[in-house]
Amino acid sequence: VARKLVAMDLGDLRRHHLSLVLDHLVREGPRSRARLAAETGLTKKTVSALVADLIDRELVEELDTPRPGTVGRPGTDVAAAGRTVGGLGLEINVDYVAAYVLDLSGEVCVRHRSDGDNRGVPTDRVVRRLRRLAMAALDAAAARGIRCAGATLALPGLVDPTSGTLFVAPNLHWLGDQGDAPAEALRLAGLDAVRADNEANLAALAELRFGVGRRLSSFVYVSGGIGIGAGVVLDGRLLRGAHGFAGELGHVVIDPAGPPCACGARGCLEVSDRSPLAVATALRSLVHLLDPEAVVLGGTFATLGEANAGEVARHLDRLTLGARWHPSLAVPSTLGADAALLGAATAALDRVVADPTIVPILNEEPSA
Amino acid sequence: VARKLVAMDLGDLRRHHLSLVLDHLVREGPRSRARLAAETGLTKKTVSALVADLIDRELVEELDTPRPGTVGRPGTDVAAAGRTVGGLGLEINVDYVAAYVLDLSGEVCVRHRSDGDNRGVPTDRVVRRLRRLAMAALDAAAARGIRCAGATLALPGLVDPTSGTLFVAPNLHWLGDQGDAPAEALRLAGLDAVRADNEANLAALAELRFGVGRRLSSFVYVSGGIGIGAGVVLDGRLLRGAHGFAGELGHVVIDPAGPPCACGARGCLEVSDRSPLAVATALRSLVHLLDPEAVVLGGTFATLGEANAGEVARHLDRLTLGARWHPSLAVPSTLGADAALLGAATAALDRVVADPTIVPILNEEPSA
Repeated sequence: VARKLVAMDLGDLRRHHLSLVLDHLVREGPRSRARLAAETGLTKKTVSALVADLIDRELVEELDTPRPGTVGRPGTDVAAAGRTVGGLGLEINVDYVAAYVLDLSGEVCVRHRSDGDNRGVPTDRVVRRLRRLAMAALDAAAARGIRCAGATLALPGLVDPTSGTLFVAPNLHWLGDQGDAPAEALRLAGLDAVRADNEANLAALAELRFGVGRRLSSFVYVSGGIGIGAGVVLDGRLLRGAHGFAGELGHVVIDPAGPPCACGARGCLEVSDRSPLAVATALRSLVHLLDPEAVVLGGTFATLGEANAGEVARHLDRLTLGARWHPSLAVPSTLGADAALLGAATAALDRVVADPTIVPILNEEPSA
Repeated sequence: VARKLVAMDLGDLRRHHLSLVLDHLVREGPRSRARLAAETGLTKKTVSALVADLIDRELVEELDTPRPGTVGRPGTDVAAAGRTVGGLGLEINVDYVAAYVLDLSGEVCVRHRSDGDNRGVPTDRVVRRLRRLAMAALDAAAARGIRCAGATLALPGLVDPTSGTLFVAPNLHWLGDQGDAPAEALRLAGLDAVRADNEANLAALAELRFGVGRRLSSFVYVSGGIGIGAGVVLDGRLLRGAHGFAGELGHVVIDPAGPPCACGARGCLEVSDRSPLAVATALRSLVHLLDPEAVVLGGTFATLGEANAGEVARHLDRLTLGARWHPSLAVPSTLGADAALLGAATAALDRVVADPTIVPILNEEPSA
């Protein structure tokens, strides 16, 4: 680490520190500069200078209300700024396209959704529909004073998170023959390249940041919609797999004599009756292989609530080898049907959190 | 990290540096002090002092042969010492018990194995058999000048790696009703507590250190014996799961209408015909969930060789969603049937590598 720091120039170091402070405020909420210093290990003087920089970029704001028992500036809390910089989350799914704008304070400021069956519709037509929706969302955000710093697209299939290429989305009947790259095709004016990721991965990211995942070190988020996917979080990090394909729970076979699936196999979870027993039957393989702390049931499974989750857990207890010593934990997600969009917007905002200097300081004289 | 170093006392720092140098020699092989300094980021003076300390403990030795083109001490390679300190690897499996002594140079110096069916035999009788074998192995090692610094026991079931408790080993018909702790029961004279771990996990560790796993960042080692297990390695680290139960590939169900398994379910891989198709059918779930870089086929599967592995990969290509873009990679292990024992001995030796000061300096005057 010492050698790494030597290789870092001062600009890198400052960016790293700005990111450290902003990330801490985004995750942990408003707090005083003194507390920020204590928690990040930076000096109070450094923290004050970093906070001043972040305020100049409108990424951090001072809260008006001093905390009880404190007087003046040292006790004034600072917070990640609401309604200044946003992340644009986009989604193409089987029966809708949607756009979401999330600000740094964690507030969802814009929600646009357009229903309509996308199965078998050519990619470029769906992309055109989503582009219109995204532009409307950016306009609505701008009307509230929010500039979006990035965009991420959630897709229901195998995605290369580096290139954004969608390899295959069986439920959309997009078989990737043409090397679809819907994120690249979006080309939103005023925004950098749109990134893409699997919808269950992004939903798991939202669960990790805002949901029950905050209290878990490892969990599997099960995304239930027309398709079924999973986002696997181990040690607080998303498992992507060697090629970005991890988490395809929907194509775990629960009965080789079952009905045919769009992927070519038979008896995948995705084409099962989705009863608690059928879900637990697929999760049995997952639990035996990964031994997660908990299973978080999202999407349509979340709407079935605690009773359904409890029934899944009871079946798992009967079906898995280790349950006698560590009973299964299955809980419904509290993030509702929008978890993937929330995760996509969070991922988009994370680009600012990772490097706050991509947001320019307002009113700064441009150098000649 | 800076704060952590401040909290470390000088003894901790020295232990950390000794471990860094010894670990580098164990993994990377013999090299000069100058090269060690360049590769570890320590100064040449520090490396020389650390190597001298490790030589005093007989953990490192100077090689006699200077490398071509070099003269005298600066060019003399140093190496992790052979035949001084060893790790004792032990195994209880369905039809044998075994003991292995591995030295720091990576040489297996002692191999003892005693065949005999352990199914349904009371734990304490099997432990007594293994203790006799272990004592004989320690004697044989001592006769070669090797003191064992620790022991690790490989078990074919669910093991808590912290306490060493064996929860259940279905193929041994040990159902864990009495809270079996065979590692604790071993009590080998002159050795600290014996640690225990799942056999497939330990085999995966050996594969990571000595086998094809050296070249892979993520892989699944499939352990084929009377039971079937898996050791999952992600980013070069063993996936243990939330309770130490990850990798139970043998109990992934491939046909819910299949024959009954000792675990209580039907149609687990373990009770299948183990043809390449049946193995690929279980691996399909694993590949869809984890997306590993490769599958390493060990134990009895390894003896079936390249042709069998190739057939498993071809079935996987047909059965998995992502194979069209990233074809499946399945290779036989080169470590043979002893992979778990080799991993157990490696884990035992790792205690010395992690803290070389647990081995005393010979001929040092004891303080009054």
